[in-house]
Amino acid sequence: MQNITVALDAMGGDFGPRVTVPAAVQALSHFPELKVVLIGDQNTITSQLSLLDCQPHSRLSIKHCDRVISNSEKPSLALRNSAGSSMRVAIDLVADDEADACVSGGNTGALMALSRFRLKLLPGIDRPALVSALPTATGKRTWMLDLGANVSSDADSLFQFAVMGSALAEEHLGAPARVAILNIGAEEIKGNDLVKRCAEMLSQTQSVNFTGYIEGNQLLQDSADVVVCDGFVGNVCLKTCEGTAQLFIDKLKTHMMASTIKGWIARKLFSELFSELKTLNPDQYNGASLLGLRGIVIKSHGSADVSAVVNAIGEALHEVKRQVPSRISDRLEAVLLERHY
Amino acid sequence: MQNITVALDAMGGDFGPRVTVPAAVQALSHFPELKVVLIGDQNTITSQLSLLDCQPHSRLSIKHCDRVISNSEKPSLALRNSAGSSMRVAIDLVADDEADACVSGGNTGALMALSRFRLKLLPGIDRPALVSALPTATGKRTWMLDLGANVSSDADSLFQFAVMGSALAEEHLGAPARVAILNIGAEEIKGNDLVKRCAEMLSQTQSVNFTGYIEGNQLLQDSADVVVCDGFVGNVCLKTCEGTAQLFIDKLKTHMMASTIKGWIARKLFSELFSELKTLNPDQYNGASLLGLRGIVIKSHGSADVSAVVNAIGEALHEVKRQVPSRISDRLEAVLLERHY
Repeated sequence: MQNITVALDAMGGDFGPRVTVPAAVQALSHFPELKVVLIGDQNTITSQLSLLDCQPHSRLSIKHCDRVISNSEKPSLALRNSAGSSMRVAIDLVADDEADACVSGGNTGALMALSRFRLKLLPGIDRPALVSALPTATGKRTWMLDLGANVSSDADSLFQFAVMGSALAEEHLGAPARVAILNIGAEEIKGNDLVKRCAEMLSQTQSVNFTGYIEGNQLLQDSADVVVCDGFVGNVCLKTCEGTAQLFIDKLKTHMMASTIKGWIARKLFSELFSELKTLNPDQYNGASLLGLRGIVIKSHGSADVSAVVNAIGEALHEVKRQVPSRISDRLEAVLLERHY
Repeated sequence: MQNITVALDAMGGDFGPRVTVPAAVQALSHFPELKVVLIGDQNTITSQLSLLDCQPHSRLSIKHCDRVISNSEKPSLALRNSAGSSMRVAIDLVADDEADACVSGGNTGALMALSRFRLKLLPGIDRPALVSALPTATGKRTWMLDLGANVSSDADSLFQFAVMGSALAEEHLGAPARVAILNIGAEEIKGNDLVKRCAEMLSQTQSVNFTGYIEGNQLLQDSADVVVCDGFVGNVCLKTCEGTAQLFIDKLKTHMMASTIKGWIARKLFSELFSELKTLNPDQYNGASLLGLRGIVIKSHGSADVSAVVNAIGEALHEVKRQVPSRISDRLEAVLLERHY
């Protein structure tokens, strides 16, 4: 089995090495093909490793660096001052072919700017997009993009998101993906110019299985495999979904945690339902991909816990194995050929 | 007590007179000051009235018309061919001072185009906005606008939405309203040009209590009294919220409706929880207002049931009593004075 090396920004995320170090160790035992390079402050990392009572691991190495890009830093400034930061070094390893993928829970804007600068965009792509798989009522998943890599998009970018999302989803599904555009109505006359122009382009593209518009209330209904929208809408929409789900979960939890007879009955009656509802909160998943780059970059939630970071590493492994960037590239080439001839 | 006359588009909504007629009769017994003009096909309306075994009601009248604007009709076309349609006649009654407010569950785009054409905009308003009150975790409400009256907006419009929302919310709250902009992050550097420009304008306006940005996951958290966004984002976001809430409610319902001992216990002990969760679905409320017009127009959900249409009529009454259009006008004048001097 060939090894796959993941460069893990140990300092990224709200909890830094307290979460990333145990996640790396756990991931190594989950995935026998995995090698991890932990990037960050050597002292903090080794002290976290010693807390875990972890023996020196042949597939784990540390790359020291003493700078961290903060969450409040503007992407342009972060880019300029990135030298020697854990995020920059992690992306550099991918750019220099020393790692197969990078995982970071740090500043999203900076991660995108650095990835774009060091890894470059795939031919035919104007902007990268952030994509994540949402849970649905049927147990299947729906890939949604862009989730906020860009604050505005034109129809060409939206079209490229559809092609990229399609390629990624099909690598997971092993079957053609239903691609829909998020809109304010299902009828053709609905929506702004952006979605209408993108819909027109997708309708004329045979190699993408475009199924039309869907509305916000259909997002978790397994109405499409890929949902395309601009980054502002996608980000607000995903967070709305997460916030609403969390509110309902918290209400149920309050009843289940009550130290009364009723609470005891609630725990007996609703524990299965409670677990099921938790799986329907998109926030439970982790590992959004930055698509459109000549390399694999996974954005982990800032607030991710150990098992969530392990999931993000798992997504990185999956994308390396399925060679997602070159699949996207192939798909784009086919679409461009179809559109131009 | 002075009578308040509501022109009710009897043909609007998915169920037409089957819902609007019993809703009118129920509203009349709820609100002793209410007079209703039912507008639509006289035969259908009278046969619905006879089904209700309803005596001729002194505060209920019928205005016959034989045309209906369909949901699929483009607003521009609907406007041109509106003469004699139930929606047009309802708005005409308001424009001609024969009714104090209009309620319709019909085509939103057409309702907006017709209202704008017949009622005209308030001075200082470039575009009307659709506003609705969302439930929150604390039991208080948050007014959100625009929910889709416009498919795109500029910063001036967004600013006007904030002023209008503020005036409406304060009529309900009887206190200054916290006004926030929906964005993809809470930090000042986050967002697109639209929200940044609007934030700058609001920060410079003392007569609006601008509290900054909020994210999608804070929508139901009572983080603001008024949330401002463009109509595309607002519509998608509200429907996402409704869809997620409905999915969770349906899952719980399945457990509560089970014809097992477990289901029986759940129904006996947790019906209150179930009712509480239902009140957290924005879809449970009805009666979105079209703000910015020289008259009161309430959009009822297409799928609204009898009690939901009664709620929409109640909202119309409230806005008539509080003279919402002139309150908005006063507020706008104050803001414009502040900005220009």
